[in-house]
Amino acid sequence: MDIIKVSAESRTSAVAGAIAGVVREHQRAEVQAIGAGAVNQAVKAVAIARGYLHEDGLDVICIPEFVTIDIEGNQRTALRLTVEPR
Amino acid sequence: MDIIKVSAESRTSAVAGAIAGVVREHQRAEVQAIGAGAVNQAVKAVAIARGYLHEDGLDVICIPEFVTIDIEGNQRTALRLTVEPR
Repeated sequence: MDIIKVSAESRTSAVAGAIAGVVREHQRAEVQAIGAGAVNQAVKAVAIARGYLHEDGLDVICIPEFVTIDIEGNQRTALRLTVEPR
Repeated sequence: MDIIKVSAESRTSAVAGAIAGVVREHQRAEVQAIGAGAVNQAVKAVAIARGYLHEDGLDVICIPEFVTIDIEGNQRTALRLTVEPR
């Protein structure tokens, strides 16, 4: 299962569609964002994806946590949102 | 139960403490943020509060949704994060 990487420029509806698709297929999705603009787009996308998945009878929740990732040799703190049925 | 209002200038550890306190007392907390900077602080605070509450044996999740609020006669869209045990 690929992690859905979100940037400040990501379209929320596109990210929401990706989240809904991955949850339908794998019963969970992982969304990763670095920085305020990206985190904002990610959380809005989860709110929209909740609506999409509600139509399928799925009530999804999200679990935010910090993760340390390596970007070209530099350690960065990202926010990861795990989205899964309640 | 009061809504915990978060701004871009809110300290995440202070917001996390407030979330943990409200969840301990009321079994849920509602966090509200408007704008990317505020949403980022709110989500980071939830991630930190998860750690605090985990020490109490509580595994909390979060549910993001859009809400329309009235600020001095103007309609604004806020993001509300409901935090509650899984």
